[in-house]
Amino acid sequence: MSVVYDRVALIGLGLIASSMFWAIKRGGLAGEVTGYARSAGTRDTARKIGLCDRVCESVAEAVEGADLVVICVPVGAMGPVAEEMRAHLKPGATVSDVGSVKKSVIEAVAPHIPEGVHFIPAHPLAGTEHSGPESGFAELFENRWLLIVPAAEDADPEAVARLRALWEGMGANVDVMDPDHHDLVLAVTSHTPHLIAYTMVGVADDLRRVTDSEVIKYSAAGFRDFTRIAASDPTMWRDVFLTNKDATLEILGRFTEELFALQRAIRTGDGDLLHDYFTRTRAIRRGIIQAGQDTSAPDFGRTKGTR
Amino acid sequence: MSVVYDRVALIGLGLIASSMFWAIKRGGLAGEVTGYARSAGTRDTARKIGLCDRVCESVAEAVEGADLVVICVPVGAMGPVAEEMRAHLKPGATVSDVGSVKKSVIEAVAPHIPEGVHFIPAHPLAGTEHSGPESGFAELFENRWLLIVPAAEDADPEAVARLRALWEGMGANVDVMDPDHHDLVLAVTSHTPHLIAYTMVGVADDLRRVTDSEVIKYSAAGFRDFTRIAASDPTMWRDVFLTNKDATLEILGRFTEELFALQRAIRTGDGDLLHDYFTRTRAIRRGIIQAGQDTSAPDFGRTKGTR
Repeated sequence: MSVVYDRVALIGLGLIASSMFWAIKRGGLAGEVTGYARSAGTRDTARKIGLCDRVCESVAEAVEGADLVVICVPVGAMGPVAEEMRAHLKPGATVSDVGSVKKSVIEAVAPHIPEGVHFIPAHPLAGTEHSGPESGFAELFENRWLLIVPAAEDADPEAVARLRALWEGMGANVDVMDPDHHDLVLAVTSHTPHLIAYTMVGVADDLRRVTDSEVIKYSAAGFRDFTRIAASDPTMWRDVFLTNKDATLEILGRFTEELFALQRAIRTGDGDLLHDYFTRTRAIRRGIIQAGQDTSAPDFGRTKGTR
Repeated sequence: MSVVYDRVALIGLGLIASSMFWAIKRGGLAGEVTGYARSAGTRDTARKIGLCDRVCESVAEAVEGADLVVICVPVGAMGPVAEEMRAHLKPGATVSDVGSVKKSVIEAVAPHIPEGVHFIPAHPLAGTEHSGPESGFAELFENRWLLIVPAAEDADPEAVARLRALWEGMGANVDVMDPDHHDLVLAVTSHTPHLIAYTMVGVADDLRRVTDSEVIKYSAAGFRDFTRIAASDPTMWRDVFLTNKDATLEILGRFTEELFALQRAIRTGDGDLLHDYFTRTRAIRRGIIQAGQDTSAPDFGRTKGTR
């Protein structure tokens, strides 16, 4: 591997940024990586664990001279962060992000990108339920997808190719997608499933006739996978739903429509409808295993992460 | 470990029965294990892979002389199976099952249990999305819960203790619960989550503007865990919903009520409500990790199963 950017700045030091740092270091993909987090506690932790070559005291200091700036804060905070860095960006630099929604990020960030700086939004489809500077590990992006979502159709091809090289160096597969389609695809594969998982866990917590201790003890029967999803960072997810409102509401509408059909089948005892439905959904699972995004092994094939 | 039952008969040879066989053998918990499956193909496969000491050609032959008979067929088929074995059960034997619902199993099976035979329903809270005789492995029940759900309050304590010893020998933790409460707890921790996962996967499959290939490629963003749940055996799950109708419909009602509240918060932009909700659900996850029913490691701490 070789250096893709001389200097990379990571703004916000949570799960994604810290994983990026370890992956960039592992691959020798950048000369220097600077970092900034708004909270002094997070900056202290980062210094303590060696996260970033240099932890800075301001956005301005972190982006100064950087060839690539990656905004890694919750989606709702990206606009103000972009405004703060505006005057300090190096001409010819690239600004990117890792937000889970793209249309609203582009609306919030693009106006603050000066002439001569490239803005190339991106979204890594990887995560765990953990958050904060200590949660990252170099393997997070291995064989996961990174979507590059150019804000304009005339995005500079060389700048796009360089960002792609960085992510490929971190182990990701890269696709390019337009913002509208990105937000719809993610509403289906991520945002709505998260909302549903949060809801189911909330219902379980709220029932008076079944104790929390029972729910927790007996979670292995299916509920456990929901709790993992529903343990993700609350601020990040609040921002996702508020900023990808239209697509999420559309998919939720389709979801409740289908759920009511299955509910009616249960009420009326229509076993054939249920059996057909459950048979159809099995095929999708096989596709995911064939696509290498999961394994069929009883251990789920997951291997331990390292720094 | 020592022999708990001289002879155990497994009726139905799917994931649970095959895992029981390997776990019983590993622990030396039974003198002989006989097995029966309705399908000749399944019986052939069982003989080929050494599943059961003796694969029988009829229910009658399999249960003949057995000290414990475990009914491991889908819940909807348990009544007819019990009727078939009725005349062949050994006096003093115990009949048990592994069904995911208990009230309707008791209604269907209890009338066929002759005087002098103990009927002690049970439910192991363990599974994978795989089914069939080749899917079992000895570790499936390790540190998972087994609920004993006596059909009557005067269940023979010695027969209950012996069944408990068998399951503890297979690695399970054992609790005792009454049928009504069992069916409600499972509606929360298992049945409703499964229905919701099936629904979400069905919606994704059905959308015309997002291709199956996109859904599959980008599943790691949250959707993947749903597909694992939604790949479970269709016959088993059809029977679960038809036989635990009341509790499932009750929990579904609560679920849609909550979902609509979150949906309204998204529509109206009520970020505080969303943030509070998502913060609350995180605590449940911590409880599950503390209870040893999952781990916080990036690899989910799952280890490979063996026979």
